[in-house]
Amino acid sequence: MSDILPCLMHSPPLSPQLLNSLTPEENTQCQHGLYFQDGERRVDYILTYHIKKPSSSRSNRQSSRFTDNPRGDPEVASQDHSMDYHEDDKRYRREEFEGNLRDMGLELEKDEDTKTPGVGFVKIHAPWHVLCREAEFMKLKMPTKKVYEVKQCSGVGAKINTLVNKATEPLHPNVEENRGQHVKHLSYAFSREKQHLFDLSDRDSFFDSKTRASIVFEVLKRTKCTKAKYSMVILYVFYSTLFYPKAEIVLFFPCRKYFGEKIGLYFAWLGLYTQMLIPASLVGVIVFLYGCATVDNNIPSMEICHPRNNITMCPLCDRACNYWKLKEACGTARASHLFDNPATVFFSIFMALWAAMFMEHWKRRQMRLNYEWDLTGFEEEEVSDHPRAEYELCVMQKSLKKEHKTHKVLIAYSWVFTTEKEKLTCRDRLPAYMTNIVMMLLMIGVTFAIVFGVILYRISITAALHMSNNPTTRSNVRLMVKTTAAIINLVVILILDEVYGAVARWLTVLEVPKTDRSFEERLIFKTFVLKFVNAFTPIIYIAFFRGRLVGRPGSYLYVFESYRMEECAHGGCLMELCIQLSITMLGKQLIQNNLFEIGIPKLKKLIRYIKSKRRSFQEEEREKKLQRYETDHFLEPFAGLTPEYMEMIIQFGFVTLFVASFPLAPLFALLNNIIEIRLDAKKFVAELRRPVAARAKDIGIWYNLLRGVAKVAVIINAFVISFTSDFIPRLVYQYMYSPDGSMHGFVNHTMSYFNVSDFQDGKEPMDPHHLGYQVEMCRYKDYREPPWSNTPYVVSKEFWAVLAARLAFVIVFQNVVMLMSDIVDWLIPDIPKDISLQIHKEKILMVELFMKEEQGKMQFIDSMTPCDGKGRNNHAPIARSRSIPHTHSHTHDVDYT
Amino acid sequence: MSDILPCLMHSPPLSPQLLNSLTPEENTQCQHGLYFQDGERRVDYILTYHIKKPSSSRSNRQSSRFTDNPRGDPEVASQDHSMDYHEDDKRYRREEFEGNLRDMGLELEKDEDTKTPGVGFVKIHAPWHVLCREAEFMKLKMPTKKVYEVKQCSGVGAKINTLVNKATEPLHPNVEENRGQHVKHLSYAFSREKQHLFDLSDRDSFFDSKTRASIVFEVLKRTKCTKAKYSMVILYVFYSTLFYPKAEIVLFFPCRKYFGEKIGLYFAWLGLYTQMLIPASLVGVIVFLYGCATVDNNIPSMEICHPRNNITMCPLCDRACNYWKLKEACGTARASHLFDNPATVFFSIFMALWAAMFMEHWKRRQMRLNYEWDLTGFEEEEVSDHPRAEYELCVMQKSLKKEHKTHKVLIAYSWVFTTEKEKLTCRDRLPAYMTNIVMMLLMIGVTFAIVFGVILYRISITAALHMSNNPTTRSNVRLMVKTTAAIINLVVILILDEVYGAVARWLTVLEVPKTDRSFEERLIFKTFVLKFVNAFTPIIYIAFFRGRLVGRPGSYLYVFESYRMEECAHGGCLMELCIQLSITMLGKQLIQNNLFEIGIPKLKKLIRYIKSKRRSFQEEEREKKLQRYETDHFLEPFAGLTPEYMEMIIQFGFVTLFVASFPLAPLFALLNNIIEIRLDAKKFVAELRRPVAARAKDIGIWYNLLRGVAKVAVIINAFVISFTSDFIPRLVYQYMYSPDGSMHGFVNHTMSYFNVSDFQDGKEPMDPHHLGYQVEMCRYKDYREPPWSNTPYVVSKEFWAVLAARLAFVIVFQNVVMLMSDIVDWLIPDIPKDISLQIHKEKILMVELFMKEEQGKMQFIDSMTPCDGKGRNNHAPIARSRSIPHTHSHTHDVDYT
Repeated sequence: MSDILPCLMHSPPLSPQLLNSLTPEENTQCQHGLYFQDGERRVDYILTYHIKKPSSSRSNRQSSRFTDNPRGDPEVASQDHSMDYHEDDKRYRREEFEGNLRDMGLELEKDEDTKTPGVGFVKIHAPWHVLCREAEFMKLKMPTKKVYEVKQCSGVGAKINTLVNKATEPLHPNVEENRGQHVKHLSYAFSREKQHLFDLSDRDSFFDSKTRASIVFEVLKRTKCTKAKYSMVILYVFYSTLFYPKAEIVLFFPCRKYFGEKIGLYFAWLGLYTQMLIPASLVGVIVFLYGCATVDNNIPSMEICHPRNNITMCPLCDRACNYWKLKEACGTARASHLFDNPATVFFSIFMALWAAMFMEHWKRRQMRLNYEWDLTGFEEEEVSDHPRAEYELCVMQKSLKKEHKTHKVLIAYSWVFTTEKEKLTCRDRLPAYMTNIVMMLLMIGVTFAIVFGVILYRISITAALHMSNNPTTRSNVRLMVKTTAAIINLVVILILDEVYGAVARWLTVLEVPKTDRSFEERLIFKTFVLKFVNAFTPIIYIAFFRGRLVGRPGSYLYVFESYRMEECAHGGCLMELCIQLSITMLGKQLIQNNLFEIGIPKLKKLIRYIKSKRRSFQEEEREKKLQRYETDHFLEPFAGLTPEYMEMIIQFGFVTLFVASFPLAPLFALLNNIIEIRLDAKKFVAELRRPVAARAKDIGIWYNLLRGVAKVAVIINAFVISFTSDFIPRLVYQYMYSPDGSMHGFVNHTMSYFNVSDFQDGKEPMDPHHLGYQVEMCRYKDYREPPWSNTPYVVSKEFWAVLAARLAFVIVFQNVVMLMSDIVDWLIPDIPKDISLQIHKEKILMVELFMKEEQGKMQFIDSMTPCDGKGRNNHAPIARSRSIPHTHSHTHDVDYT
Repeated sequence: MSDILPCLMHSPPLSPQLLNSLTPEENTQCQHGLYFQDGERRVDYILTYHIKKPSSSRSNRQSSRFTDNPRGDPEVASQDHSMDYHEDDKRYRREEFEGNLRDMGLELEKDEDTKTPGVGFVKIHAPWHVLCREAEFMKLKMPTKKVYEVKQCSGVGAKINTLVNKATEPLHPNVEENRGQHVKHLSYAFSREKQHLFDLSDRDSFFDSKTRASIVFEVLKRTKCTKAKYSMVILYVFYSTLFYPKAEIVLFFPCRKYFGEKIGLYFAWLGLYTQMLIPASLVGVIVFLYGCATVDNNIPSMEICHPRNNITMCPLCDRACNYWKLKEACGTARASHLFDNPATVFFSIFMALWAAMFMEHWKRRQMRLNYEWDLTGFEEEEVSDHPRAEYELCVMQKSLKKEHKTHKVLIAYSWVFTTEKEKLTCRDRLPAYMTNIVMMLLMIGVTFAIVFGVILYRISITAALHMSNNPTTRSNVRLMVKTTAAIINLVVILILDEVYGAVARWLTVLEVPKTDRSFEERLIFKTFVLKFVNAFTPIIYIAFFRGRLVGRPGSYLYVFESYRMEECAHGGCLMELCIQLSITMLGKQLIQNNLFEIGIPKLKKLIRYIKSKRRSFQEEEREKKLQRYETDHFLEPFAGLTPEYMEMIIQFGFVTLFVASFPLAPLFALLNNIIEIRLDAKKFVAELRRPVAARAKDIGIWYNLLRGVAKVAVIINAFVISFTSDFIPRLVYQYMYSPDGSMHGFVNHTMSYFNVSDFQDGKEPMDPHHLGYQVEMCRYKDYREPPWSNTPYVVSKEFWAVLAARLAFVIVFQNVVMLMSDIVDWLIPDIPKDISLQIHKEKILMVELFMKEEQGKMQFIDSMTPCDGKGRNNHAPIARSRSIPHTHSHTHDVDYT
């Protein structure tokens, strides 16, 4: 991207080597637009508004698709004709608003004469006293002059930890700045009365740019027009534009200093997740290799593949299919063993504990970051007080409509804004809620319908291909059908994913939630439900329903009276589940994450390049001279972290939910994430407007969603092992039925007999002599009574015994794994020991610091109140504290008084 | 208790009518010892120490049994002879320590010439400037002068809420002071620089007595002897004695004002729990009544009781017992229906959701209290920095021992305390840890052994009584045995409960944990495990093991080769479980909670009365003139809340764990708690020393234990319903085997046939013609093949089908209930809406208040820096802020400068 040069400001937090890498010209170019006209006052914030004729449709169109743009698009409503002639009123209100801002101490500079037509800019600078005042109100913790030594752990554990950190460094972005430092500044909530505590020698850098911006944002949120309840969200179009020279600094430089704690936490989380995927993928690969190594010693598949094995199987479809020899299933049986062996049971227990460990580690990491980022003691606002622009517009329109009936509009207009109590009631929202419910059900229905459609495709294609006379076609039928069906599923998932993202956003906009927080929560909930249903419905069908609703020879189950339900291959459905999983997961990651995220920007760049060739040279020149904030204005707005987290949580689902059937999932996830971190970082730095730095102590709702997925994973894995795999039937055979305690005879035991004379008319194979002899009995995989019993074809005692064992396994597995997770949770303390010691130490140091200050006062009191000790009226120390000189203060105070 | 008169101080927070109820003499008597000798300075804290010859063994013995005395008994170690001659050194250190306290600004008064021999008192008074300074360090939130109106909810829901609160008022103690108030003071962290914000007109009452005490305690914790690392915990015996006139005020007056937030939270929790028990007991009673009402329509018991029912049952014991008619089980079958009907399934789901609701409500209540008590923003200390006396003594001894080998003791003694790094290592603690593990296992083993003993008692007594020839004895055998066994169990539980409490304490003392926090946690963990095992082992045996390990006729299971394992009565084991549960629960509550807690104090009073009669009149007089703090010194120290919470959590276990079998449990718990609240309040006020007010935001580990119990309850209830009750067999019969879909024939279906010729030799009944005819086949309750099948007496297909259904029910129940609990958790917001709105409102008001203050400064800046707007060097506002008069300040400042 030509407009995103790697240019940097001379602000101190940047590392010197990066600064030096810039040529002087680049440096000057970067400064362009970063300061007020006087070149002295830094621009901390930018407000944007439309001038008369709105023509910014281009910039708005960009924020479509997935982006979670929390502030955007009030034009949706302004296209309303009744609003159009209030443009002048708006201008007047804006002036009032800006006046109020000036009253708050902010300094403004207007720039309407830009090269961007129809857009006006208000540049805001926060002078030092405003910064100090607001930092005090916000109780920002700032580093004091007091420095103390951080004890370095010296044990073996610490050394291993350092080694691991070094080895995995490329995997996680640099979010913590303190790593390896031996000293730390004590932090204390900034207060003007305690100024002497802080090192204010360089006022320009005491508050860094992200802090300055969030301070200005705080003031903006608070300011309102006095008479009318017009707030910023109505008056300005894009007010979150916070420009800053973009640079590829994010991997060298702590993200949180640039983006704030909220985005810093995302990268920290992603880094930890990726790091934790390493052991998981290692164990996964070992489990897979164990399967490969033991495939030749597996008795059931040996029996199936044995040349003397002579079992005749019942046909797989009506009429077209023939009897077949079990030997033909040899390949599938051997392949199934790769994923269906005792090691996978171990692996799914391991992964459940891994998930618990991951959660615990994240809690600790979060605690550590909170401490290092001086967020301990900061309380997150539980109620976001800031109504969204859409909400305020909606309320406004409602009031207008009400008044329209009785008064003239213009009178109403000025009156309406004085009524404070107006709000959207449940009744106003009812249509939106109904639409929401209906649409959600419809969307889920669409997913189910498509999955059902793919099933029908598989059944019909299988039957059709079986009729073909080409023997090679026939032998490859199963593989072909499976693969094409999985690809169809994948394509459908990819398309629906985009559709569902848009639908969820549309539905949430319809609801008009009051605050950004509730908007985000509702959007996340809907997106989560839709995307999970979309991604996992076909997989759940294969895991738990396929091959279970088949019926039995002589009384098969039919869909639409002619399609027989599909069976699994002899080795169980686990193999097919595995294929489906790997195709979906790999496809989603390769296509959605990488192709879309890399490819589409490249494509855009190409298009722009072609366009610019056609354009006149002059215009290109003009673009180069754009102010920094003008360039930023045309970037996409920051869309929130929802899409990034959502992508990762679905991946987490693939890694944990069906891990029993696909031990390589963590490996694929790991490979994807190593790329993902870099792509995300690049996107945030170079392609999006810089967001307002938000403070956050935790990752919020996402932690709960992760916990939820991890919980569900335990149950699903229990069911996969006990119902989808043959693990339990094998165990039951070995300990209850096997004559010699070995697995010999297992294959025979799992198959029931069928008398071919019991076939329904017209369902028997067309060519009964295909195998070269007359078939009287054929076998099928089920636990049913033989034809010669009193109750032929009824489920047998073995069926119930195996079912009971399967259910018992689910109960034991679920509860044992949940108990173990809880124990892991309980054993690992939430706060790392070194951090808790440091917090304690800081507290003591702080008290010591204050007590030293108090010493002088104490002595003074002693001399003033010699022996009366009444504890009354000894107000002196406080009065004194105002007059004694601050001995620690090194600030260059210039006293105006 | 004669020494605890209902006397009150004239401190303002007390209600006037209570004050007026005191006669002037009482009032004067109460003042005795509350002030320094000058009668002006209030005593805020008391330190106690031994003088030369320790003779305070009496007061120490009192803190025995269950009490969790976190600071007590350093004498245990001081009985060590090597310590004895350091008494002088201690006196010296004490003087140094007191000097340090004076340096910190505290005012002390010594009183060694008391009527209590061997005990010295140090009275501490914190003067105003110390209070202010420490309140600032501790960031105590104090009410400001700014008052705002609290919006009263006006909806129907609010009205119902008020009604419910009024109706249940007697159930919960008065913990919240703000109820019904329409205005609230804004709170702000106290700061001397912002003094003008607070209403300091009455300095005596601005900090109430509990705050003053906790401020002094904070200073004490921080103070150490300079050279030697002697801290308060070594120098003084009882330093937590914090006297205050005791009164029966707790039910009229907010607990937290008197005891602090931690105890306030306990009473709030107990109140909410009791309140929540009301709906639970209501539904429980309804479920029980449903059982009573439908007992006559219950087909299985009708079939058993039917006069034409002619089923011959196999004998219940070897030789002595005879064949019997199923009709004889009619009574038991009818009684069983009371607790084994579909409503109990509903009830156990209800109770699981109830538990989830309770947890959620508690979270909300806690949040509300945190807000009302101005604890929002207060961060709990994660690391208690204060080593316990025992730990410090232990470290001291270790150092002494080490030095003893090389140096003379006296030299070593003074040297040792300069080495800071000495601490107890794992190696020092290994013996204690080993003892812990061995003892815990031993104790659990004892419980199991006793339960097994009771089983043997039941088996042998049953067999013995069956041999008696008296027919009335024989018919009452079962009931007698059950009841006596349950009573034996109860007595054993009560005795072991006391023993285990003492053992857990002893084991924890052995471990020498470093801090009070870890002491408490370890003690709680051990007590919890032991007491739960003790209370629930017999119940779990009856619920899940009894009647399951019986074998079958002809091949019974024997213990010690002669005792046949016991069977359940025909109606299932649920009935017996119910009896056991009710006896244990009622007995525990009546005897342990009420008899012990009311009876023992009454007994003590009686003994004292008898003693005082013998004593001379003079001595009694003398006792009356004791200073307040001397009287308090002989009260039992505050033992922590552990025993109170533990009692309640075990009750919570009874209410939730087996609620499927005993729907009346919530009712019993409710009745108990109504008394319990009053007893606890009385105990805290009148019988214990007033504890140091501790701030706490939540109930800590107890919440997690409650959650754990609630989780386990879901699983246990699932198993009780599916395995202990006949619910699942009935369902399976109705939907799988019943010819007409009704329950007719169910009794017959559950019983297998036994050919009497298959009895082992010597096991057949002595009197085969007891019923008047030759028995060839008898029936027994089990799903087994009949004697005429190919595989006689092998478990039948029905057995496996029922087993599978039972297991499936467990899975479905567990997951559905857990999901529903999670949904409840998710639906109910953690912060009540009105509280979040108020917090938001307070924040806005606070900013408004500050901004108003800033106005003056702003205008000043504008005039100072006309138009340069460089934002540099405008340091003026801060300088000015020191000199402008605070217009809002109404304090009577007397300036000494």
